Amino acid sequence: MAKDSYLVGLIGSGIGPSLSPALHEREADRQGLRYLYRLIDIDTLGVPPEAVGDLVRAARDLGFDGLNITHPCKQLVIGHLDALAPQAEALGAVNTVVFDDGRAVGHNTDATGFAASFARGLPDAPLDRVVQLGAGGAGAAVAHATLTLGAGRVTLVDALPDRAAALAGSLNRHFGDGRATTAALAELPGLLKRAHGLVHATPTGMAAHPGMPLPAELLHPGLWIAEVVYRPLQTELLRTARELGCATLDGGGMAVFQAADAFRLFTGREPDSARMLADIAELADTVPAANVKQEVRT
Amino acid sequence: MAKDSYLVGLIGSGIGPSLSPALHEREADRQGLRYLYRLIDIDTLGVPPEAVGDLVRAARDLGFDGLNITHPCKQLVIGHLDALAPQAEALGAVNTVVFDDGRAVGHNTDATGFAASFARGLPDAPLDRVVQLGAGGAGAAVAHATLTLGAGRVTLVDALPDRAAALAGSLNRHFGDGRATTAALAELPGLLKRAHGLVHATPTGMAAHPGMPLPAELLHPGLWIAEVVYRPLQTELLRTARELGCATLDGGGMAVFQAADAFRLFTGREPDSARMLADIAELADTVPAANVKQEVRT
Repeated sequence: MAKDSYLVGLIGSGIGPSLSPALHEREADRQGLRYLYRLIDIDTLGVPPEAVGDLVRAARDLGFDGLNITHPCKQLVIGHLDALAPQAEALGAVNTVVFDDGRAVGHNTDATGFAASFARGLPDAPLDRVVQLGAGGAGAAVAHATLTLGAGRVTLVDALPDRAAALAGSLNRHFGDGRATTAALAELPGLLKRAHGLVHATPTGMAAHPGMPLPAELLHPGLWIAEVVYRPLQTELLRTARELGCATLDGGGMAVFQAADAFRLFTGREPDSARMLADIAELADTVPAANVKQEVRT
Repeated sequence: MAKDSYLVGLIGSGIGPSLSPALHEREADRQGLRYLYRLIDIDTLGVPPEAVGDLVRAARDLGFDGLNITHPCKQLVIGHLDALAPQAEALGAVNTVVFDDGRAVGHNTDATGFAASFARGLPDAPLDRVVQLGAGGAGAAVAHATLTLGAGRVTLVDALPDRAAALAGSLNRHFGDGRATTAALAELPGLLKRAHGLVHATPTGMAAHPGMPLPAELLHPGLWIAEVVYRPLQTELLRTARELGCATLDGGGMAVFQAADAFRLFTGREPDSARMLADIAELADTVPAANVKQEVRT
C-alpha cells in the first residue's frame, strides 16, 4: 500500500487538552494527507508510566507511523526503543518516536522547536548572559537550544537546586565547561540586572498556575523575555514585560515548531510553520481554562 | 473531544489485498469524516491467530473505534469480547468489533451483508429449494442469510461432509428442523435439476483458484446463481451462468453491504451503498491477480 495515510498519537498523562491533534491534523489536511492523531492517556487507561513500552510496541503492531511522548514518559520510553537520534541522546529524553520498518527510533523536537521559534521571534537578541527560570524537562530542552544558538552562559535557577545542578552538569559536559551554571532564587535581582535575556520554563502563568514567576520589579527594558508557557499565549509575565518595552517571545512558537519537526519526521513532508503559527494563535486560547490542568508540551 | 474522527482496522491473515480500507475510506471521505482504516496482518506480525485477544485489547487502548475481524480469527476473538450482538451469537462468528466506552461488542455483518445484496440483486428469486456449495465460514453466514430471507430448504454440499453436517445441525436448531440438510457431491446433478437457486460459497473462481466449482452442464436457465467470490467480480461460474440465461448475483454486493453495515456500526452514520457498489466495481479488478492469495471477506 502506498504511504498515503498517517496514524500517529501522543502518549502521556493528563493530555486531554493537548493541541497536538489539531495542529498536526490541520496541517495534514492542508497538504491533502489522510492523517489521524490519537491521544493515548495513561491516566484514562489506568496504567502506570512504565506501561509506555507496551504501548509503544502495541502502536507499532497496530500500524501507527509514529508517536509523540510527553510527561511522565519521555525518559522511561528510551529503554524500549531501537535507536536514538543525536538530539534525543544528548537530552536523555524522547518526545517523538518514528516507526521505520518495525524499528522504533527516538527523537527530540522540543529543543529544535524552541531554537527555531527563538531564531524566528528574537533573531537579534544578544545571548551573552542568559538567565533561565526552571530546570525540569522543558527547561532541559530550552537550555540545550539556547546554548546551541550560541548563548555564552546560561544561569539556571530552580526551586529544586539539585535539579538545576544536575542539568548544569549535563549541559557543561555537552557544550563545554562554564557554559551553564546555577544560582539561588535570592540571587535573581543581581543576575537579571546584568543579564541580556530571561527564559521562563516553569508552569507559572498557565491557567492552573496563574500569576508571575518572579517579582515584576526585577524586569527591565534591556531584557528580552522568552516564555515556554503557551496556554494562554499571553501570560502575565509577557504582558508585564511588553508594558515595560521588553522584546518578548511567547510559547506558541515552541509548541508549533516541535509539532512541525515531528510532522516532518512522521511524514517526510515539509510543514508550513507560518500556517501552524496562525493555527495556534486561534487554538491556544479556545479551550476552557478549567480543562487545562497541567502543562502539555507536544 | 467530539467524535469527529474514526480509527478502525482489520485483523486477519494474508489481508494485504483487502479492499476494506478503500471501501471504508472512500465512503468516509464523501461524508467528510476523518477516517483511517489500518490492516493488522498476523502473518506480517509473526503472531498466531490466538494473539487476536491481545490485539483487540491493544486497539481499544490506543484509541481504535472498532475492528473488522477475518480468517482465521472470527471464532477465536469471541472469548475476548464483553458482549455479542444476536447475529454474531447465532453465527458463532464475529467479523466486526465495536468499542463503546471501553467495552468490546462483537457483531457479524457477513450474513446481513449477503442478505442485503441478495434482496437488492435477486429480489424476485424463488427460494423454495436452494443448494449451497461450501459450508465454511462464508458458507455459514450466507446460509443464515438465505434462511432468514425465507428459503424453504437449503441443501449444503461440501467436500468435507462433517463440516456440512455441523452447519446443518446449527441451522436447524436456529431456524427449525428440516430447513437445512446435506448432500454428497455426487448428488449435485439431481439436486440442481430440482433446485430454484445455487449459492456458491467456496474459493473456486478466485484468481488463485481459477476454474468452475462444478461441471458447467449441471447449470440450467431455471436456476439463479449467487456468487460469494468477488475478486474477480466476473467469475467463470457467473460467466457460464449468464451465457445460459441464468439470473445471477456477483459477490461484490456482499462485500459492499458487510462493509456498509460495519461502517454504520463504527460511525452511527448511514453509508450510501450505491456509491460503494460503484467503488467495488472499480476496485475489485484493479489489484494484480497475483497479489490476491486467498479469499478475503472484510
